[in-house]
Amino acid sequence: MGEFDLIEKIKSIFPSANQDGQIGIGDDCAVLDCGNGREWLVSTDMLIEDVHFLRSQNPYSLGWKSAAVNISDIAAMGGTPRWVFLSIALPAALSPTWIDEFLKGFRDILSQHHVLLMGGDTCSSKNGICVNVAIIGEAEKGRSIKRSAARVGDWIVVTGPLGDSAAGLKCILSDLPADEHVKALIQKHTQPCPRIHEGLQLAQLEGIGAMMDISDGIASDLRHILKASGVGARVNVTKIPRSAAFSAVCQRESWDELDLALGGGEDYELLFTCRPGTPLPAYCTVIGEITSHSEQLEWVGTERDFSGYRHF
Amino acid sequence: MGEFDLIEKIKSIFPSANQDGQIGIGDDCAVLDCGNGREWLVSTDMLIEDVHFLRSQNPYSLGWKSAAVNISDIAAMGGTPRWVFLSIALPAALSPTWIDEFLKGFRDILSQHHVLLMGGDTCSSKNGICVNVAIIGEAEKGRSIKRSAARVGDWIVVTGPLGDSAAGLKCILSDLPADEHVKALIQKHTQPCPRIHEGLQLAQLEGIGAMMDISDGIASDLRHILKASGVGARVNVTKIPRSAAFSAVCQRESWDELDLALGGGEDYELLFTCRPGTPLPAYCTVIGEITSHSEQLEWVGTERDFSGYRHF
Repeated sequence: MGEFDLIEKIKSIFPSANQDGQIGIGDDCAVLDCGNGREWLVSTDMLIEDVHFLRSQNPYSLGWKSAAVNISDIAAMGGTPRWVFLSIALPAALSPTWIDEFLKGFRDILSQHHVLLMGGDTCSSKNGICVNVAIIGEAEKGRSIKRSAARVGDWIVVTGPLGDSAAGLKCILSDLPADEHVKALIQKHTQPCPRIHEGLQLAQLEGIGAMMDISDGIASDLRHILKASGVGARVNVTKIPRSAAFSAVCQRESWDELDLALGGGEDYELLFTCRPGTPLPAYCTVIGEITSHSEQLEWVGTERDFSGYRHF
Repeated sequence: MGEFDLIEKIKSIFPSANQDGQIGIGDDCAVLDCGNGREWLVSTDMLIEDVHFLRSQNPYSLGWKSAAVNISDIAAMGGTPRWVFLSIALPAALSPTWIDEFLKGFRDILSQHHVLLMGGDTCSSKNGICVNVAIIGEAEKGRSIKRSAARVGDWIVVTGPLGDSAAGLKCILSDLPADEHVKALIQKHTQPCPRIHEGLQLAQLEGIGAMMDISDGIASDLRHILKASGVGARVNVTKIPRSAAFSAVCQRESWDELDLALGGGEDYELLFTCRPGTPLPAYCTVIGEITSHSEQLEWVGTERDFSGYRHF
């Protein structure tokens, strides 16, 4: 059973929570009415050894990323992250250094975003390491940005270059000598920066439509907006922003730029739609527009098809 | 590293969140100020295959208990459970029936307590099954009951019989013929009932002190109240309430009643303290009193010592 089949099954078994502005399953975060002019955003992510990471990976980076994915989910709705809860199952053989480094990475990104660790659970594991992070953020009531709000004619916009994280992983796996470019890409992979400030700024835009974060790759993630909004999209791949480091290393190593930029995940840039002509901050790049062709995704500027990473 | 050592390490690395009535690590739930005369209670629990359960166990019961432990954490603070988030990692080889039954058990207890599933995460696992449940409940501001509020002279009280769940597990493992008593005990083990109504009622008591739920066994759990409150306790083991089914089966099978009633976990009854003389509901039994002997736990009515279940 694939991840999305399982989610459909769960949605069919459990009563829907979507009413009075409250949102359950189906967006980056659940939206809960806090009753005082604010709404709370909640998201949770599980990371499993040998599926999402290897034990040989840098534990500091794993700690950092465990929180980053959740903080990014809050950014994706235009909210402010506040509190996290860490559950962690650890094999008895794991070294204390591993645990220390993991916790340091986790602490450092929390500290950067003024997020407090409020609780969690610790237990042993007979098999691999298992981590779950739950986060609570907040937004002004009715102002969190949903995936379902894209309208025909909207611009499709991203907040920064894509592909850096995937290229950074390839640098690590290929053991490339660490020049400035390679270092920059690896940094983007090991310590991604969730776009909290950008999300807050974009949520205030007059013409804002739908928004989400790019965790699985734009080719996969954009489809969630199309499905939730009942619209289509036309994206010009030549307009996808790419960093100087990314292009330099891809060209030198003969890596497929489009494949990495469109299919590669973990960039944690924001993907949003807005009314055409909306004045945008400088970090934004318009890459296409929303069409009326329900759930159809057209690529302009390439003959190829791209599909994102799948969890199962 | 033991569970409690790891928690101490985490507490030393991360900034404390305990201020302005807000509570972080150290109670059944975190307490968050919701800003409208209410406070939110949050708890999260992780269940790992081969540590907390076996794959051969009844998946319906596992689904039920995955939510029950969290709902019970809300009961332990005198709150009302509202929303849950389910993260689940599943091996590819797992049968669809297992998943269906797990989800049914999870749904049925949520439905019984009017709790909504609001989101979560699904992923594959290369090793065992891993489940994490995060729950959000609410209470009147300043009215949730903490572990730290026991006072010297307080009565120590439990809301129902202890040992049933541990005896139920022993019935299953011993494959006892299912007479009425055995069935009742097994039911207490496979489908425990969190004491939400009792918790809400007790939180309104004039003389209420500290409260928590009994998940690891009273011998272990009571120590948390003693530590958090800086007090001691004297407990008369002959007063620990035991069910008719429990005593009948223990006597017939020559099982050690005290060992099961004091050391056995998963009863999910509430353990609380209150001013002596407080009028109590009929389901309550006074089993001892709080003393000034910091963190010392004296057992009256037995020569033996009892220590609870440890996670590591």
